[in-house]
Parts: sequence; C-alpha cells; structure tokens
Amino acid sequence: MLSVGINGYGTIGKRVADAVRSQPDMTVCGVAKRSPDFVAESALEAGYQLYAIDDERADAFRTAGLNIEGTSADLVVESDVIVDATPGGVGAQNRTLYEQYDTPAVFQGAETPTVADTSFNARANFDDAWGAEYVRVVSCNTTGLSRLLAPLAENYGVEKTRATLIRRGGDPDQPGRGPINDILPDPITVPSHHGPDVQTIFPELSIDTMGVTVPATLMHLHGVNVTLESTPDVETARDLLEAESRIFVVPKDARIKGCGELREFARDAGRPRGDIWENCVWGESISVDGRDFYCFQAIHQEADVIPENVDALRAMFELERAEDSVATTNETLGLSLRERPPERSPVISEQACDD
Amino acid sequence: MLSVGINGYGTIGKRVADAVRSQPDMTVCGVAKRSPDFVAESALEAGYQLYAIDDERADAFRTAGLNIEGTSADLVVESDVIVDATPGGVGAQNRTLYEQYDTPAVFQGAETPTVADTSFNARANFDDAWGAEYVRVVSCNTTGLSRLLAPLAENYGVEKTRATLIRRGGDPDQPGRGPINDILPDPITVPSHHGPDVQTIFPELSIDTMGVTVPATLMHLHGVNVTLESTPDVETARDLLEAESRIFVVPKDARIKGCGELREFARDAGRPRGDIWENCVWGESISVDGRDFYCFQAIHQEADVIPENVDALRAMFELERAEDSVATTNETLGLSLRERPPERSPVISEQACDD
Repeated sequence: MLSVGINGYGTIGKRVADAVRSQPDMTVCGVAKRSPDFVAESALEAGYQLYAIDDERADAFRTAGLNIEGTSADLVVESDVIVDATPGGVGAQNRTLYEQYDTPAVFQGAETPTVADTSFNARANFDDAWGAEYVRVVSCNTTGLSRLLAPLAENYGVEKTRATLIRRGGDPDQPGRGPINDILPDPITVPSHHGPDVQTIFPELSIDTMGVTVPATLMHLHGVNVTLESTPDVETARDLLEAESRIFVVPKDARIKGCGELREFARDAGRPRGDIWENCVWGESISVDGRDFYCFQAIHQEADVIPENVDALRAMFELERAEDSVATTNETLGLSLRERPPERSPVISEQACDD
Repeated sequence: MLSVGINGYGTIGKRVADAVRSQPDMTVCGVAKRSPDFVAESALEAGYQLYAIDDERADAFRTAGLNIEGTSADLVVESDVIVDATPGGVGAQNRTLYEQYDTPAVFQGAETPTVADTSFNARANFDDAWGAEYVRVVSCNTTGLSRLLAPLAENYGVEKTRATLIRRGGDPDQPGRGPINDILPDPITVPSHHGPDVQTIFPELSIDTMGVTVPATLMHLHGVNVTLESTPDVETARDLLEAESRIFVVPKDARIKGCGELREFARDAGRPRGDIWENCVWGESISVDGRDFYCFQAIHQEADVIPENVDALRAMFELERAEDSVATTNETLGLSLRERPPERSPVISEQACDD
C-alpha cells in the first residue's frame, strides 16, 4: 500500500484525500492543514490524521482543541509520497522540504511547470510520469483541454486550437472573490497562460487561448474550436468523444442548459460534494464546418483534477500502466455519469424552495 | 426637418428619441408606449408627445392621469418615418400598420431580416439603405462585430472569423431575467444566430459564432479571432482600429479591467445614462499569431445601435452620405471617449460606498 500524505487540505486536498482512500493500492497517511477551522474539524471527523503546517500553527490547533499528530515535516517523513495541494506558489517553496526527506511529491497546476520533472495528464502523457519523483498535475482548465484534444489529435491531427475559457470567478467557499455583475477579459492579453500550459502536455500543439472571468462559482465553460488536419464527420467525432471515459457527452434529451443543471445532475446521482470529475461536452454543440471542429464543454474546477492526482501517483510508483490505472480510478470513484442517462420528464418548470 | 415617430419607448426607443432630438435635421414627432409606468412619466417630463399603443391601452393612460395625444396609428399618420423599437417579433406585426399609411420604418435587430428591404450598419453597408423604405438596424452584437470586421476586411481581407460572445443575461431594468451564478451555452448549438446575422451585412463572410450567457447586466464581451488573408502587424492593426470613429481602443494606462470600469468611465465622462455607443476594444488584447488576429471587445447592449438608427434614417431619406451622416451623428451625440484619455492615478483601491 502506498502511503500518501496530503499537504494542504483545501478544495483540492480534501478531495484527493477521499479519492486516495478509496483506492485499493493506496492509503492516506495524514493531512496537513494551516488553520484550525471547520474544515480541520471535518478532516478529523472523516478519520484522517491531522498535521499542522508548522510548530507555530500547531499551538493554534491545540488551543482550538483539535488533536494533531505533528507538523507537515513529520507527515513528509512518515509518507511514501506527498500530494501538495497548498495554494499556488507555496508548493514550489515546499519542494525543499520534500527533497530534504527524499520524499517524492505531486504538485498542482497553479505551480509553474518547473516545479516538477513533468506536467501530467492521465489521458495524454501518463508515461512521462513513469518512475518520476516530482510530477505536476496540470490545472483544471488544462486538464479539461488535454482530455478533449488527445482523442482529436490522435484521430484527426490538430492544425490549430483556439479556445475561449469563460472562468468562474471563485469557488463557493471563496466569498472574497469577484467579480459581481461584471465580465472581465482575464488576462486582457492574448494568449492567456492556458495555451502555453496545454503545451506542457502537447509540446508540438498550436493553441491560442483567451480567458474571461464571470460572476459564477459552479464550473468553467470552454468554447472550443479545433482546426483539424482532416475533415471529421460530426457523428464520428461525437462517437469518439463518447468513447472517452473522462468525457461525459451531455445528451440532448437531458435538457441540461448550463452548469447549474449539470451540478444538480451530479448531486442527484449521489456524487460526493456534487463533484463532476469528467469534462461535460454538450452533444448538441459538437459541430463541424470544413476542418473546424467546435464544442462547448463545462469543467468542474474543484473536481476534474482529482482522478488525475490518483493516476499520477500510480505512474510515479509504477503501480499500474495508464489504461489499468485509469480504469481502477474510474471504478473506485464511480465515473459513471454516462451510464446513468437522465430520465427527466418534460416538465418546463418545477418548484424550487418557496422561501 | 424629418419628423420621426418612435413606436416603443423602452431601452432602445427612449435612447433613439433622445438621439434624434439632438440632430440638426430631425425632430421627434412623438413616442408610443404600451404601459403607463414610470418610463411613460419620464417621456412626458422629457417633453415628448406621448401616444398609447392602441385604444384599449389609451384608457389605462388616462386612468393613470398621463396625457396622451392618441394611439400609435395616429403617430404613424403624423410622422414622416417610424423607428420601431417594440419587442422582437412585434415590429414585424407592426409593418402592416406602417404600410397601410405608407410610412417608412426602421426596425431593430431582434426582428428577422425579412422584415425589411435591407439590414444596416453605418460603417459597413450604409449605401444599401440609400432611399430604402424599410430598414433593419442589426442587433447590438452584430453591430459590434460589423464595426470591427469592416476595417479588417478592407485592409487585410478576411478568410474566416470565429467569435465567442459572452452575453449579459439581461439589462439592469429586467429583474426577471437570469441566470444567477450560472454559465450557459446560449444557444447550445454552433453556430449561434449571430454569425448568419453578420452575413446580412457581409454576405460573403465566413464566420462561426458561439454564444454564452452569464450573470451580468452591464455589457457583452466578445472574444474575437479573425484569420486574415494577409499577415498584419500588431501596431498597424491597432492604428487601424484607433482610426475608426466608433471604436474606442481602451489604452493600457487607463487600467480598465472589465465592463464595470468601462461603464463607470462613461458615467464620469457625463454620458447620458452612462451609455457607450462605441465598441470598446482593449488595446492590450490586440494580438497577432501568423494570420490570426485576436482581440477582446465590450459592447454596451443598450447603446451601440443608437447612432446606427440615426444614420439609417439619413440613408433612407437621402439626407447625407455615409461619412457625413456618421460625422454629424458622432458630433451631436458626443462620441469622443477617445479624446478624453483617462487620467487615473495609480491607486490600487479606492473607497466605495461604505454601507
């Protein structure tokens, strides 16, 4: 059993912990957290061993009456590997600690690519992380684009990709973020950093991305154009995407109009925290104009990188090859939205909370 | 003096009335309105002759104590021309009334193109409306795209245009519209109706558009890609757009990050209702990758078609040729954002209402 320490128990860290715990070949050694808040209490209630970031912080946990096993340095010593889910930039600082104890680590996409030996997406470049000591799982948006581009590149060849990323302003637990009632080019310059980040996975790919931020918290939405090297048939392209285990092609008869209904669908399906680990590509949006492929896809920013973190661990420790690891992860997490076709009655409007 | 009746006194109608009134060669005959609400009171206070939509509605106005001159049929008789600013689809129904009294009319972009002899954008196809009896001013988004594409097409040739339109969910005076905290592919299918609508102005243009709707009310934002027939230089392309009288190239040192600050800038500049009649193209966003041109532009959905309505009237009655009409309209309305470079001090954050 691979003993995995989770350094940083926020949006990503707590989800990675739950995902690792459900794997047959991994166990959670413990989770390290900065603040003794409700999330720390939840970690203890979930049965995780809790660690404070450092000695100074440890006192705050004890004062709050929260039982800790030590500091993150202790966790690094006791774990076979660390998944670093601290805020962007902190992970790079932490690498020194991991190297000090010769502990391999997985970093998240908010770190610069140089933090690790390779950037990682299970679908596109699993083998690049085979036996690697430091691996960076690319961000939610880059993961979403990589999953979509891999089958298109393999089957048609990609001449050029142009994507507009309509980004959620913040997560539901980030009340300090905006915008409110605004639409921001973010960044104003073109291309956004997402294009170059996709190139850490596909070094030869021609891609330009434009980023926009809007007042929403549930998911990102991508408007994607891919000029292919051959002319695809719409039905074949759709079948191609439907065959991808981490792409959920939203059927027309589901009547899912946006991100809110997608997340509600996931909640109804019993997903933990209502998470959607898959890209959600609207089937109706898959279009072809000459060699130009188009689609809309929604990306759950809190969730889509979670299975990738699990697969990155397997690659680093050479536990399973790509196909097997992805199958194991999918089965244990329950990536089966595709197998539960929505059966909504054609009712126009139903009763919400009548407050 | 051209006597102009305004049928429909909502978001567009009241702005067209104010714009027509400020022209040297036009006068407002009166405005027709459906409901005796605060907007009707404002019309009277602004000095406009008020008309009810029909006899039945006339009683409601009298009951509300609002003085009316008659019904919209009376307005059609008394006017040289009608600007129809009723909700989409109603204009087409009204055409019968206008024909009955042999009164020419301008329709808005929410009508289907077949409502009129030609669709219209002052920059791109002014002459098509020369002497025409029925003209349709294309929608806010199509107007914005047409103004941007005209100079690019003339100077470089356009091989293909791909645009993602991030649309505001509703105007500030539309409390019943959504979404709240959602991002909607709207429509889900590709292309959206905007591409074909641009082709009513540029029949030969290859264009694919994707529509998205978000929780904002202030402006639309367009992420635009234009594959040109020749390779542009960034500086030259920027100079080209800066020379357009209805494009405001947002300077970098203005530190304008989104639609909210653009509208605040217009309010500070004393614009009526804080309106922005120009396309707002972020200078920093103008980019070139090979023959691919990119930019972000914000479009004030309530305002950008207003000068176009005025110019359409001049074309229909052969009052002035394109260049002269645009100059007259711009001067009377005050399209001079470009001449008022923002002089903000580099303060990171200033005090908002401390409620």
